[in-house]
Amino acid sequence: MAADGRSGDQPGQTVAGLHAVRAVLRYDPSQVSVLHVERGRRDGRMQRLLDEARRAGIKVVMAERRSLDALADGAVHQGVVAECRQAATALGLDALTGLVSSLTHPPLLLVLDQVQDPHNLGACLRTADAVGADGVIAPRDRAVGLTPVVHKVASGAVGHVPFFQVSNLARALRALQDLGVTLIGCCDTAEQGVHDADFRGPLALVLGAEGSGMRRLTREHCDGLVAIPMLGRVESLNVSVAAGVVLYEALRQRRVVSGVGSR
Amino acid sequence: MAADGRSGDQPGQTVAGLHAVRAVLRYDPSQVSVLHVERGRRDGRMQRLLDEARRAGIKVVMAERRSLDALADGAVHQGVVAECRQAATALGLDALTGLVSSLTHPPLLLVLDQVQDPHNLGACLRTADAVGADGVIAPRDRAVGLTPVVHKVASGAVGHVPFFQVSNLARALRALQDLGVTLIGCCDTAEQGVHDADFRGPLALVLGAEGSGMRRLTREHCDGLVAIPMLGRVESLNVSVAAGVVLYEALRQRRVVSGVGSR
Repeated sequence: MAADGRSGDQPGQTVAGLHAVRAVLRYDPSQVSVLHVERGRRDGRMQRLLDEARRAGIKVVMAERRSLDALADGAVHQGVVAECRQAATALGLDALTGLVSSLTHPPLLLVLDQVQDPHNLGACLRTADAVGADGVIAPRDRAVGLTPVVHKVASGAVGHVPFFQVSNLARALRALQDLGVTLIGCCDTAEQGVHDADFRGPLALVLGAEGSGMRRLTREHCDGLVAIPMLGRVESLNVSVAAGVVLYEALRQRRVVSGVGSR
Repeated sequence: MAADGRSGDQPGQTVAGLHAVRAVLRYDPSQVSVLHVERGRRDGRMQRLLDEARRAGIKVVMAERRSLDALADGAVHQGVVAECRQAATALGLDALTGLVSSLTHPPLLLVLDQVQDPHNLGACLRTADAVGADGVIAPRDRAVGLTPVVHKVASGAVGHVPFFQVSNLARALRALQDLGVTLIGCCDTAEQGVHDADFRGPLALVLGAEGSGMRRLTREHCDGLVAIPMLGRVESLNVSVAAGVVLYEALRQRRVVSGVGSR
């Protein structure tokens, strides 16, 4: 990833919780400057974390629960917070177009319009990483960024799946179209169902915020719209569940094309 | 649903938040005894809620934020809490076997082994409702029940998609098998991928808790195991996202069988 695409220096960041800290210790141990552990915690999972930190030469500090609460900034920390040297930063439009131009396979991207809940962004990043997506794109305004809660919920995906924050989402969508990427928006009023759409080529799947959905301008930029079938009483899915449904449908169709495990 | 399958009387319950309250006003207005609204809230969405409550003849009480915080029991209430006459209650094993025996289509069920996070249970109920699943089954011990947070996150699915809490999950799984239901467990070490499995017959999809997965005994009861492909760095999906992926894959396969929108 081109360093010049980064959105600028940010202060160091914390990663909280057993699962998320284990992920950063396993995949990015050099990022961790200090591991803060609640005094008196001696269970097996914590002991294995401490062993991993020791092997990686990371300083461990015993702390009171109150200090951990403050460090974790509202995230559930389960008695462990990793202080990181540098925050994972969002990338900008230049990095996005640079990445898409350089790919040798049809890109698979996820666009989130105005998702404001850090749990939802974290779960979307985790799922995007799981399907091997090439990136997640969000507007800079009226949307959540890479907060500690996002890091925790993403369980190691932050810093692995590229995350782009663009100041003008409509412009970014046009730039993707110019690079041959088809934009498919998810919209509950669309006539075509998600399982009837073609997700095999260069593709960006666009989801709106919970409640309000995609903004009108975003929807108008889409080359096509698909609906996730809703057969019950509820009117919509949680946005991270919707992302899972469309991303795994894309993965299924792409696997069939490549002849792996087709049914 | 047979009333004798219910797990007993419970006190009334609250539903918090604009989305969840709107759902209960729309689908179960007779359940709502009092609507508590934060004093001074006058935006359009709240006004529409108040109009709906008035049309349904529901008593509205203006309250301070602090009272709403207490009523909502930790759930984010956005200035509105509905007090309900009777809690939606979980159903038991007799109701489960009664339901499955009476269905005239191949059942589609979701089994959650030891899911303890109310957000995850709520999102799973919401998704199960969305695919038209016939029920969600969980053990009574070491698992979350129908708390106010579950109601809120489920966005109207509680009371619509049947929720069964059984005292002995292994016994319930054997009862389902005796009724001809195939149990397919999701397990990251399975050799068969979720898109290669056959989800078309009478089916219960089994998911474990985050982190630890299914208990050994639960896994051993399954007729087959499938893995959700994980192509990135993260080791697992959020359990509600995993439920969305497997339930919508089941829906896709069943729609293809019934000739609707096949591709």
